[in-house]
Amino acid sequence: MLICKVVKPLVSTNRIPDFEHKHLLVVLDGSTQKVAVDAVGCIPGDWVICVGSSAAREAAGSKSYPSDLTIVGIIDHWDPEAGKSVPPASGGSSSGGAS
Amino acid sequence: MLICKVVKPLVSTNRIPDFEHKHLLVVLDGSTQKVAVDAVGCIPGDWVICVGSSAAREAAGSKSYPSDLTIVGIIDHWDPEAGKSVPPASGGSSSGGAS
Amino acid sequence: MLICKVVKPLVSTNRIPDFEHKHLLVVLDGSTQKVAVDAVGCIPGDWVICVGSSAAREAAGSKSYPSDLTIVGIIDHWDPEAGKSVPPASGGSSSGGAS
Amino acid sequence: MLICKVVKPLVSTNRIPDFEHKHLLVVLDGSTQKVAVDAVGCIPGDWVICVGSSAAREAAGSKSYPSDLTIVGIIDHWDPEAGKSVPPASGGSSSGGAS
Amino acid sequence: MLICKVVKPLVSTNRIPDFEHKHLLVVLDGSTQKVAVDAVGCIPGDWVICVGSSAAREAAGSKSYPSDLTIVGIIDHWDPEAGKSVPPASGGSSSGGAS
Repeated sequence: MLICKVVKPLVSTNRIPDFEHKHLLVVLDGSTQKVAVDAVGCIPGDWVICVGSSAAREAAGSKSYPSDLTIVGIIDHWDPEAGKSVPPASGGSSSGGAS
Repeated sequence: MLICKVVKPLVSTNRIPDFEHKHLLVVLDGSTQKVAVDAVGCIPGDWVICVGSSAAREAAGSKSYPSDLTIVGIIDHWDPEAGKSVPPASGGSSSGGAS
Repeated sequence: MLICKVVKPLVSTNRIPDFEHKHLLVVLDGSTQKVAVDAVGCIPGDWVICVGSSAAREAAGSKSYPSDLTIVGIIDHWDPEAGKSVPPASGGSSSGGAS
Repeated sequence: MLICKVVKPLVSTNRIPDFEHKHLLVVLDGSTQKVAVDAVGCIPGDWVICVGSSAAREAAGSKSYPSDLTIVGIIDHWDPEAGKSVPPASGGSSSGGAS
Repeated sequence: MLICKVVKPLVSTNRIPDFEHKHLLVVLDGSTQKVAVDAVGCIPGDWVICVGSSAAREAAGSKSYPSDLTIVGIIDHWDPEAGKSVPPASGGSSSGGAS
């Protein structure tokens, strides 16, 4: 799943009826803007978990829902800089758990 | 879903019959040109929402339609530069909604 | 779907039987070489439409065919430089249609 | 499958009920932080195998589980620098096996 | 499908039982190391065809096998530098086939 930041709602009057009444939101995945279906009720500024692939359909409510990116959770606390300062090649762990 | 811009129709005389009569369009995903099936009726210059993965098939009309990128909505108003000026690591939201 | 250029046939004597008699071709996706199953009968030098994801399986002939990239159409005329000269952020369209 | 390093648990109080009681972990895929469902019981600092695509669902326990990234194995010994020093174009193999 | 080079076997004692007895191999996809399930019997140094997406599951033996990358063929002869010297925008083909 991706860690994204909610930017704003997206208005698309002319769209396929399969999207029903669900909210579409613009989210930032790194520096790329994508569109996700909201399954949890989030607001701009939230850091969220987005699921893609075929799982995005069931996460949006049904097996035939045409989503490939669905917001499935709001992250309680997220510091986007914290994890990036962990050198990937290091043998130890920077956060909480033991190794 | 991706936010793409419609470039032009794509003509492919020799193609598999499964594509039927649906329109194929060249779209720009960032700086990459891709081909999408049009499910909403859009024109060159439109900013559109494109769905990928297995959802692209049902969005194009049936579970067995062989698309991996389908245009599912036209965005009412889109400024491609607006979202990119939001620093991803900032705590607030720059656009419209409340936080 | 991706826009790729056919490079050459690929010979793989030791492969899983599920591939049957279908031709495997090396294609260029940007600067990356990939392998695609040919469902239309193309030759080196052709610009083609390649479908990925789960749609590649049905496009190759059956739901259980193990392809994740299938050539589904030959593009009649393609100038790879034409689309890239369209600045993505511009409000107008460079090609044919009205906006 | 991807080779990732476990960073820390992820707390998301407001999430869809389909995630049940399973643990969500932040993992590093190269320099990108992603969220994976833990199916093996790992701890921060572990190098793990993550499966994506539709296989992530069954790997997490059931066909309808909404995951697109599931941790399916802990790697016994992993030196992230070892493989990268193999020049991809070289004819020989640097590690262990015969060619 | 991807063209990858086999690096070495991967040992993961603690893994989900669904992987059964099949071999896991580290492969190089460009400069990125990934893990693939071996369905053909290859050795380090081989250049192989890897299938991803949902097709990787059936290629590994069954619809419910949790793989997203499966080795489906060994390439008879592969020169990784040959294809990359073809300028993508050129009209002709540099290698073997006719146009």
